[in-house]
Amino acid sequence: MAPPRRLHLNLNFLSAGSHAAAWLWPGNRPEAFVDPAYLVDVARLAERGTFDAVFLADHPSMPDRSDFRPLQALEPSIVLTGIAAATQHIGLIGTISSSYNAPYNIARRFASLDIISGGRAGINVVTTADKAAAFNFGVERAADHATRYDRAIEFTDVVKALWNSWQDDALVGDKAASHFIDRARVHPTHHRGRYFRVRGPLNVPRSRQGHPVIVQAGGSDDGLELAARHAEAVFTVAHTQEDSRAYVSRLRARAEALGRPAGSVVVLPGLVTIIGGTEAEAKRREEELNALAPLEQGLAWISGLLQIDATRYDLDAPLPDTLVVPADGMTTFARGALAKARRQKLTLRQLIRSQAGGGSNHRAIVGTPAQIAASIEEWFLSGAADGFNLMPDVLPSGLEAFVEHVVPLLRRRGIFRNAYEGETLRDHLGLPRPEWAPPAGGEVVSAA
Amino acid sequence: MAPPRRLHLNLNFLSAGSHAAAWLWPGNRPEAFVDPAYLVDVARLAERGTFDAVFLADHPSMPDRSDFRPLQALEPSIVLTGIAAATQHIGLIGTISSSYNAPYNIARRFASLDIISGGRAGINVVTTADKAAAFNFGVERAADHATRYDRAIEFTDVVKALWNSWQDDALVGDKAASHFIDRARVHPTHHRGRYFRVRGPLNVPRSRQGHPVIVQAGGSDDGLELAARHAEAVFTVAHTQEDSRAYVSRLRARAEALGRPAGSVVVLPGLVTIIGGTEAEAKRREEELNALAPLEQGLAWISGLLQIDATRYDLDAPLPDTLVVPADGMTTFARGALAKARRQKLTLRQLIRSQAGGGSNHRAIVGTPAQIAASIEEWFLSGAADGFNLMPDVLPSGLEAFVEHVVPLLRRRGIFRNAYEGETLRDHLGLPRPEWAPPAGGEVVSAA
Repeated sequence: MAPPRRLHLNLNFLSAGSHAAAWLWPGNRPEAFVDPAYLVDVARLAERGTFDAVFLADHPSMPDRSDFRPLQALEPSIVLTGIAAATQHIGLIGTISSSYNAPYNIARRFASLDIISGGRAGINVVTTADKAAAFNFGVERAADHATRYDRAIEFTDVVKALWNSWQDDALVGDKAASHFIDRARVHPTHHRGRYFRVRGPLNVPRSRQGHPVIVQAGGSDDGLELAARHAEAVFTVAHTQEDSRAYVSRLRARAEALGRPAGSVVVLPGLVTIIGGTEAEAKRREEELNALAPLEQGLAWISGLLQIDATRYDLDAPLPDTLVVPADGMTTFARGALAKARRQKLTLRQLIRSQAGGGSNHRAIVGTPAQIAASIEEWFLSGAADGFNLMPDVLPSGLEAFVEHVVPLLRRRGIFRNAYEGETLRDHLGLPRPEWAPPAGGEVVSAA
Repeated sequence: MAPPRRLHLNLNFLSAGSHAAAWLWPGNRPEAFVDPAYLVDVARLAERGTFDAVFLADHPSMPDRSDFRPLQALEPSIVLTGIAAATQHIGLIGTISSSYNAPYNIARRFASLDIISGGRAGINVVTTADKAAAFNFGVERAADHATRYDRAIEFTDVVKALWNSWQDDALVGDKAASHFIDRARVHPTHHRGRYFRVRGPLNVPRSRQGHPVIVQAGGSDDGLELAARHAEAVFTVAHTQEDSRAYVSRLRARAEALGRPAGSVVVLPGLVTIIGGTEAEAKRREEELNALAPLEQGLAWISGLLQIDATRYDLDAPLPDTLVVPADGMTTFARGALAKARRQKLTLRQLIRSQAGGGSNHRAIVGTPAQIAASIEEWFLSGAADGFNLMPDVLPSGLEAFVEHVVPLLRRRGIFRNAYEGETLRDHLGLPRPEWAPPAGGEVVSAA
């Protein structure tokens, strides 16, 4: 009998929380975004809730609106290593840019984190579209969408090949024979592709879980291709179950067409939660947060998303038909927000307020623990999601409410673990440990 | 009155220890090189000895002789972050290659480590000469020596400029005014040089110590230029006090010519220690280690160093005059070893055995704690060194002996701290916190 399907929950750990005003919440300290004790406390809270992983977004440039809210300042692999030292079980997923890193460096750093954490690491591969990041790497103009994703696929090919440099038994460690590593079991990559040439081998062995879990975020067709080929978990944006199921079907079909077995990709839509003991309390919390967030911040969000000057629109009129998804930009986010506004007949102001004050592009639920648990279960059972990348409105209080009041309901419904049942991130996600396979071009390293 | 000059000690943490046979020592476990508990235990031992820092060498490729001995597999910034979480005081210096990294990524990662460790980070900038590393980054042939160092100087220029992106008071954190960061106090770099174009600003604030300490290793003229311009500590190779004093004089003269104040560079030669309760015991330990190390391993070491086939030489004859420093290679190491062999009239076999069985290119002392403390004091007082980058023969036992028996003698002589007197790596090294200065091209970031 197959084990029961289990819900997966990542904490999408966004500094002070996903709401635009999260850092303004009473008790929250502005300097928490660079306080290691805060980072560890939040991760421990997620571990108390038996979450699968902490997920860290990342961007290699100074964000435009840092005058308004905290940024993800500290580099994810460093933060996750600090969290690894302070936790026992929870997975550790860091975002990396395939456009502005050498595959050898990323393969090595995350293989190191994977070993040091006992097999709890994952990478979330993103392609980094914006100019500000390009300018930090001597690039005048970021590559176009298709090229960025083409490169990301090759980047991930190489990283995986490097993670397979060492057979699991390469470390001989025979002291009597003075034989440390059997170099015949360490294989170069000999990768020569369009974007990268990497001989290898990587100088890091495989970990307890084989190698880090590969995560992808981004719902474009190119993103889906990357996910179908490489991702073991996907962080998606979905405002309705129908949209999410449609994505899941397309992804699964494409993954199977590429020869991957069913169930090899876990789909996790983003989910913003605003929790109250009663529905009225939850709504009041949302209103209080929205009242704290400067309107200017929400206008900056919608202006960036739709590539408009939102100050020139009537915020309280129905959404004008002239607003469309911009050709180049965060199209998946823009499409989701516009469709939702039209479906729900929202004004611009209402759209901003319903998207965490302009703090998030993801679906938000405002409600009681029972309402939130019911919605999670419904999406899970309908096949719209294998779980969620959870984005509490405010940290730590919104996560605390989720761990204390929603997690017990999910456990009672029998869809979420009562305790960690395995050791590695792959164990948590129900993914098998990948068998070692020789890199495609794999010749044996000469001992000479 | 100026505070008394203090000795500085880094632990050069080389997996199992600096001796070729370190991993073969009774009790040492082959898998320790990837065991986070081992890494932390050794660092804690160094902290018990009030060392200034743990220093991690690094190389982004699989070493040739990994069949013989453990390699530095795990990436330094990850290992050091793990150590940061398990220690309170000790500094954390990681080696990075200026040839195969983007300055933005390195600036960001080590700024993150610096913050997460409370101001204890440092980077050791190396240029990475060998082919194996080049091949891992799509480079057919590493740049020549002068070009590599020219790039390293510009690399460090940019990294320092990025570390000065945020004024110390850039974080406003005014919740009443919803004002998080004052963007007028965050400055782009606008660097446009020969090797790099980096607009900045870095998305990480300055740390308690301002920014990570900059360390340089490498004794060539180009290396000295890099050190004179940027280094706050230098890891050198010196077999005699005369050689070391000559280097110190040249470095100080060049640094002062570049306008840097006296005392702004700490010079730390490498020092291998083999400690015994009596001189005979120390010599026996050395012999036991040399007996464990396969001769083949020593021959591979000297063959690589002098670019010869050592198996074709008589190991027990005086060193032939035909052996010279190879034109391209690790010239400082080769020059030091050859000069020592000729000065001491060593055979090739004796040279190998006196260099930790071919495990190290640095000066080694074999003796009692009193002899070792006396030698350290002599070098320190004569101005040949400000301290040492300590390379115990075997870890942890060789470090344990040093901490238990040599450190107390250094304290009794009044040259080494009894306890940590400051919080940051700069405090330990007696370096001032650098004042914030605008990046050279620094325009103010537009808030638009």
